Amino acid sequence: MKLLRYGPMGMEKPGMLDNAGNIRDLSAVISDITGATVSPEGLDLLRALDPESLPLVEGKPRLGPCIGAVGNLISIGLNYADHAEESGVPTPTEPVVFSKATSSISGPDDDIILPEGSQKTDWEAELAFVISRRAYRVGLDEALDYVAGYCICHDVSERSFQLEHGGQWIKGKSCPSFGPLGPWLVSADEVADVQNLDIWLDHNGTRRQQGTTSKMIFPVAEIIAYVSRFFCLLPGDVITTGTPAGVGMGMTPPAYLRAGDRVELGISGLGQQRQQVRAFG
Amino acid sequence: MKLLRYGPMGMEKPGMLDNAGNIRDLSAVISDITGATVSPEGLDLLRALDPESLPLVEGKPRLGPCIGAVGNLISIGLNYADHAEESGVPTPTEPVVFSKATSSISGPDDDIILPEGSQKTDWEAELAFVISRRAYRVGLDEALDYVAGYCICHDVSERSFQLEHGGQWIKGKSCPSFGPLGPWLVSADEVADVQNLDIWLDHNGTRRQQGTTSKMIFPVAEIIAYVSRFFCLLPGDVITTGTPAGVGMGMTPPAYLRAGDRVELGISGLGQQRQQVRAFG
Repeated sequence: MKLLRYGPMGMEKPGMLDNAGNIRDLSAVISDITGATVSPEGLDLLRALDPESLPLVEGKPRLGPCIGAVGNLISIGLNYADHAEESGVPTPTEPVVFSKATSSISGPDDDIILPEGSQKTDWEAELAFVISRRAYRVGLDEALDYVAGYCICHDVSERSFQLEHGGQWIKGKSCPSFGPLGPWLVSADEVADVQNLDIWLDHNGTRRQQGTTSKMIFPVAEIIAYVSRFFCLLPGDVITTGTPAGVGMGMTPPAYLRAGDRVELGISGLGQQRQQVRAFG
Repeated sequence: MKLLRYGPMGMEKPGMLDNAGNIRDLSAVISDITGATVSPEGLDLLRALDPESLPLVEGKPRLGPCIGAVGNLISIGLNYADHAEESGVPTPTEPVVFSKATSSISGPDDDIILPEGSQKTDWEAELAFVISRRAYRVGLDEALDYVAGYCICHDVSERSFQLEHGGQWIKGKSCPSFGPLGPWLVSADEVADVQNLDIWLDHNGTRRQQGTTSKMIFPVAEIIAYVSRFFCLLPGDVITTGTPAGVGMGMTPPAYLRAGDRVELGISGLGQQRQQVRAFG
């Protein structure tokens, strides 16, 4: 099941893909794709529908973030050894946890807006997942039962804001448009092995990242078990799981996003994102 | 105007204090105290009410967090020079920004629950404020116009989780019950000078923190201007502004919260919080 949200920013409607890849309108069934509708019971209800019986959405509407009303957008840093190495830091022995402001969330093909004064806005293709039910102190064996589904998150990062202004990383991770989510929320039952997905990113047509989720230091189940030791995850919370090697900061010399650039990224089975980069204002 | 939320956890109703200090029920006027109802227009609507005309709430109901549906709970670290000193770190030259998971938020007098394995749960009395309208790239002169009101936040912190597990601070700041907010959201018009408020905390009846918001390194207006350079604050977002000296970690030897302990804290004009500490489970 591939769930999505379509329509103008802030006014998205819920939808799902049918077998032919067309968008079907879910508005008559649920008001939105949020934590309230991606519970195990909520997903069962959607799974029981015949997509062909739902109204066909004509044309090519804008896609919004594939989950709305996100409570917490949590990120795992340095979760691929090759990316830790290119970042010049030791491989972490425990998951590095930080957050992005939820106001950074955008649609999968929305423009990336360079904040004023930005010189070091960088790309990071990541696998993300959405929590389906309250998760606190969850065991490793049952951890994946708390996942509603998976999607792509582009964890756009301003390296100067993140690393050169003191304190914590959130400042460089939270600018508006720094969290494209989607195109689809692919329900967990459709992802045979989440730790065996290809992940890639092209910058202006050149492949910069080519990784696989099999190389994560802390796989999804461990992330859930670990994070839920410290805090309670709620339905609709999103966790993005870190990026493989190939970010701009790691190049010699470093390369960053400039107005006019194009970025494309994808994960096997989860679709693709395509963004134009533009200056603020 | 002192707004509050009362009733069982997760089922709080909106209320306000009348001139005699009684709770009046606002349920017939608004569905909840959230970002949607603390806009400048929303507050004007409430201000126009005669509290004595609203239903009186009998008894002493539990108070919930004074704002519901918080989108982002943002914290400023090390914002008093004496606390930076006792923490053994340099005085920051820019605000240190981190976040607490919103699932940490609790009522002002709810128990503080020590997470399993916690040895270093610590107290931090703080002034917090609630954002009234979308704030991005806000100038210093107009920054306070974006504040709906002020409240106490107890930024409870597990120092081992925060500092000894690698990465960022969020792990030690986000456990359930680590974010008591309230008792009241005091509308900004009732706070004559937010940078001249006394702030204190007692641990088992002994005064541990006695500070004043006049000693903040980065006052509220600067925090808003600074944070909104990096990300967009939304109505109902809460920012807590750091704690003065006197936390347990700074004592010789360090002292931390134990099951059975009592904590009381307050800020002039914003009321008091009273918490019992108990073990998880």
